[in-house]
Amino acid sequence: MASTSTFSREALDQVLKRRFFFAPAFEIYGGVSGLYDYGPPGCALQANIIDTWRKHFILEEDMLEVDTTMLTPHEVLKTSGHVDKFADWMCRDLKTGEIFRADHLVEEVLEARLKGDRAARGVVEKAGDDEADKKRKKKVKEIKNVKLDDQEVKEYENILAQIDGFSGPQLGELMTKYNITNPATGGPLEQPMEFNLMFETAIGPSGQLKGYMRPETAQGQFLNFSKLLDFNNEKMPFASASIGKSFRNEISPRAGLLRVREFLMAEIEHYVDPEDKSHPRFDEVKHVKLRFLPKDVQESGSNKLRECTIGEAVESGMVDNQTLGYFVARIYLFLVKIGVNPDRLRFRQHLSNEMAHYAADCWDAELETSFGWIECVGCADRSAYDLSVHSARTNEKLVVRKALPSPVTVEKFEVSINRKKFGPSFRKDAKAVENALLNRTQCELEDLAAELKKEGKVSLNVEGLSEPAVITSELATIEKVTRTEHIREFTPNVIEPSFGIGRIIYSIFEHVFWSRPEDKDRCVLSLPPAVAPTKVLLVPLSSHADLSPIVKKVSAYLRKEQIPFKVDDSSASIGKRYARNDELGTPFGITIDFDSVKDASITLRERDSTKQVRGSLEDVVAAIKAVTYNDESWAEATKKLTPFEGQSGDA
Amino acid sequence: MASTSTFSREALDQVLKRRFFFAPAFEIYGGVSGLYDYGPPGCALQANIIDTWRKHFILEEDMLEVDTTMLTPHEVLKTSGHVDKFADWMCRDLKTGEIFRADHLVEEVLEARLKGDRAARGVVEKAGDDEADKKRKKKVKEIKNVKLDDQEVKEYENILAQIDGFSGPQLGELMTKYNITNPATGGPLEQPMEFNLMFETAIGPSGQLKGYMRPETAQGQFLNFSKLLDFNNEKMPFASASIGKSFRNEISPRAGLLRVREFLMAEIEHYVDPEDKSHPRFDEVKHVKLRFLPKDVQESGSNKLRECTIGEAVESGMVDNQTLGYFVARIYLFLVKIGVNPDRLRFRQHLSNEMAHYAADCWDAELETSFGWIECVGCADRSAYDLSVHSARTNEKLVVRKALPSPVTVEKFEVSINRKKFGPSFRKDAKAVENALLNRTQCELEDLAAELKKEGKVSLNVEGLSEPAVITSELATIEKVTRTEHIREFTPNVIEPSFGIGRIIYSIFEHVFWSRPEDKDRCVLSLPPAVAPTKVLLVPLSSHADLSPIVKKVSAYLRKEQIPFKVDDSSASIGKRYARNDELGTPFGITIDFDSVKDASITLRERDSTKQVRGSLEDVVAAIKAVTYNDESWAEATKKLTPFEGQSGDA
Repeated sequence: MASTSTFSREALDQVLKRRFFFAPAFEIYGGVSGLYDYGPPGCALQANIIDTWRKHFILEEDMLEVDTTMLTPHEVLKTSGHVDKFADWMCRDLKTGEIFRADHLVEEVLEARLKGDRAARGVVEKAGDDEADKKRKKKVKEIKNVKLDDQEVKEYENILAQIDGFSGPQLGELMTKYNITNPATGGPLEQPMEFNLMFETAIGPSGQLKGYMRPETAQGQFLNFSKLLDFNNEKMPFASASIGKSFRNEISPRAGLLRVREFLMAEIEHYVDPEDKSHPRFDEVKHVKLRFLPKDVQESGSNKLRECTIGEAVESGMVDNQTLGYFVARIYLFLVKIGVNPDRLRFRQHLSNEMAHYAADCWDAELETSFGWIECVGCADRSAYDLSVHSARTNEKLVVRKALPSPVTVEKFEVSINRKKFGPSFRKDAKAVENALLNRTQCELEDLAAELKKEGKVSLNVEGLSEPAVITSELATIEKVTRTEHIREFTPNVIEPSFGIGRIIYSIFEHVFWSRPEDKDRCVLSLPPAVAPTKVLLVPLSSHADLSPIVKKVSAYLRKEQIPFKVDDSSASIGKRYARNDELGTPFGITIDFDSVKDASITLRERDSTKQVRGSLEDVVAAIKAVTYNDESWAEATKKLTPFEGQSGDA
Repeated sequence: MASTSTFSREALDQVLKRRFFFAPAFEIYGGVSGLYDYGPPGCALQANIIDTWRKHFILEEDMLEVDTTMLTPHEVLKTSGHVDKFADWMCRDLKTGEIFRADHLVEEVLEARLKGDRAARGVVEKAGDDEADKKRKKKVKEIKNVKLDDQEVKEYENILAQIDGFSGPQLGELMTKYNITNPATGGPLEQPMEFNLMFETAIGPSGQLKGYMRPETAQGQFLNFSKLLDFNNEKMPFASASIGKSFRNEISPRAGLLRVREFLMAEIEHYVDPEDKSHPRFDEVKHVKLRFLPKDVQESGSNKLRECTIGEAVESGMVDNQTLGYFVARIYLFLVKIGVNPDRLRFRQHLSNEMAHYAADCWDAELETSFGWIECVGCADRSAYDLSVHSARTNEKLVVRKALPSPVTVEKFEVSINRKKFGPSFRKDAKAVENALLNRTQCELEDLAAELKKEGKVSLNVEGLSEPAVITSELATIEKVTRTEHIREFTPNVIEPSFGIGRIIYSIFEHVFWSRPEDKDRCVLSLPPAVAPTKVLLVPLSSHADLSPIVKKVSAYLRKEQIPFKVDDSSASIGKRYARNDELGTPFGITIDFDSVKDASITLRERDSTKQVRGSLEDVVAAIKAVTYNDESWAEATKKLTPFEGQSGDA
């Protein structure tokens, strides 16, 4: 079946286009880079994958699904850090006006030089690479066969293994050091500059409320945390989930569905006690064997995979905790269920300088395609970062209160405010100063207490105030007190599995696409029946009037059993009609012939093997349902049916 | 059950908020007008309504579903007319900076004056109106009891009946004539100005490609017309459909979910032969009785409904054609299925000056709420407008080619171009001039032919050229020729049913909300079981350990039968637990008590009647499925079960 050595991206592209799985949006207007429309089969495949996702994650774990807005005001994304940090590095050629994404440019140029080096050394490349390169519309059009120093080859390989970890200035240094210029003209490029990836707009008729199209679905979930906790009757741990479109203004999107400006995401925010990240169902998955690319391996310049069970990975500390590990394993099971080839799936750990500063650990599920290994699912432990920043900004408590099994005595620093003097002293800023004082960690309070005792006053920077606020011991005191506590209050940590549905869909296309060995023009998409757009193609052998009542009867039965099917009663040969549906990924065919008129039997064809069996309508449909919805094998499900060699036309 | 006379919008709002059906987005940041998030029950209700819509329309008619992008480049929406015409009229108070939507302001002020007039005349108002007015956050806060002239009352009523039909300048005239000023201050307002409702953004790093968030899902479907026709094997008629978010930058959104800036739409574009708008399945719906508000009635200043079957409406010509009528009836059947009260549903025809200039006919399904009659579904015959303008702009043929039953001989005007001279004569503009010449109607060509013959040349305005192109008879000829044609080529007309899902959801909330007569604080949402967020609440009578194996067994069985359910094993009383779920619209409750331990029987409770019946797990679940998925009545479905008066706690 699908094999990398014979894979032709061009052939796949033609099938996807011919069958309208997807197409460039606004094509009759010349198209817009990074925007794609899904046609009927792509739309159905996407809906089936989302449906499977809902069952696999939301229903299985009783998650709380929400649907939040895409339009997001500036202040929210300023707080989350997106306004300042959600950017890529671009460099411009001032002469030609071209704009390059800096990390991609460095990667492509170094890869091209290594390729030229291999050619100069006479190393034979893998088949298919050339064609892939051509279709990739790379900036580097021409590979020069120039042999490099052994030392330089090593340096390039080392850089490429860590390419996701460089800052803009570091990329600039690499460009200078290795003389990376505009590949087309050789002309000089500006130093990398930050480009924010959010689409900006203005909300309301005055144009004064700045907003963005959301770059992820996470923030809407965090902002509803308190309502969701309340809805869940205050029970912890729990998760929210959201499925919806997000937007990223990519600098120069290529690579089809893999890098787009508008995309469907499915995200889970699982809230967990930071002191207990065990997972009650971890035992159910601990035996799952996975292939890991941990950060120490990448940092040593290698990409050799480490294979072990998720149980071992958590035990050894490679994966930070059980809850993170539980989701890593569940992501694997989901991806394999919807058609990903497990041999072309790995979990890559983020490098220390690649990971957001707040994250405790992060693993990406990467799928191998002809474009390389592609990040398709992220699984991060975001710690308490998001809830903390939104809480600090809005002064709304986003915490969990948990009854302690028995009361505990704690010593802690507490602020008491002398209201009589505090208010009049700070007037309209009093509330802000108070919040700034109360929102301190215990360590900070300890320092402030010491300073207040020593100096009689402390200075505090308060957001919105131009000068630090000076708080004297007359206005407030900070003292260590002993309290008996019955309740523990904490900000939960967040484990976030985040799925890019379009990237997963494209990778699956590559994993399940193949041509019949006897005829390379007969292409097949071996989509798993559960996610295939249509389950059954119903074909009458001819347009003879005797057959049409049976077509009607079978149609009615399939509709009643809620099996998505299509009838093809065109005059094309049976073989042609099946070939068309092999390209659409339709797993089953039902043929109605003149024997069907006599004994009501029908033929069932399986897409991948083109094997046929025969039996009654009820038995055929039972077999289809068993394979599609109950995970039974073809052999098991068709036991009751008779092998059939008749009017195939598949030859 | 739900009744308008006792309806309290405040009570409904509290329930929707308390149960987190939806909430203002970004609430902890103070919120943004017109943006709402759906919590878990709202999200599930929305998903169930969409699922029902898919089955009722897409599956039933084999429509081609597509998923197209929301980001849309300027040129597409310029062609469709949205850049120039998709606007509301606003007027500003230059002193206070307030911005009003002109038509809403005129409507509110005149309504307030009529109300004051009625009070002055001693007319008693309907109960509930006052509270509704208060909650509506109307601009007119205070109603003055001033009696108006009888003539003035008539004029106001006449204007209000046609309020959707006025242009901006007309609204300005009304404001001057009736002295309409800022209701809060009495200060003067500017004349109405147009405000485009699209959210603008820039695509790509250079910022030079202007784009918008789509204001409707239709354009993406039109642009894919040729691919869809091809996918459908060139068969006509056919329909595409799309479900997704759209965006409108409303001037001052109020009224909760009824007027929002980001909303879910479901749209169908049904392509039909302009010469044959009959519908093969019209007979199936022709008996459906509907309530119409045709344009002649509105233009006479009345809002009296006309009741007849859709068959009669099409026959009399009130509804333009069968296909439009078919969808009007199907819309009615859909709305009633998902919970709309048919007595509070009417179809209002667009006024001639309200309708887009290209539309042949347009009917809105309007639902009655405490905010008045609300447009929830539009059903328009858009003629060939959209395909024609996109085709003219892009020079891509968006047509259907249909084999004629027998060849016909036609006389027509044809252009023939003298390529040798035409190209050199117009150089880089040659293509544009040629297209401008070829894209003429037969009538225009007839005129051009005459002029060319008489003058030896014609002048043609060509888009993109600053001067008219002069075409001499040397460059091209236009002549009447006789042809035998085997194919008829035509631009199909489009019938477009377009659903605003959020508005429908809110209207249904009002239609199904009521309080138990014995206790007005016990509120119920009588959502139809098929769309209710959760179908079953499972409650053990106590937390006694004996009951928990049965809870597990029942849970497993419900999960296997794919019935969405929730367990509530909290310590709250049974009555409290049911009351909570009445507010969530959960149609069924299963109670497990100590008799369940003995004989495995369980109790089934129906939400609206609070009636209970008892029987085996299998029989109870069969009854739930029959009512929820097979439209059976409660009485019919529970025949096998025994009435039960036991541990209700519902009192």
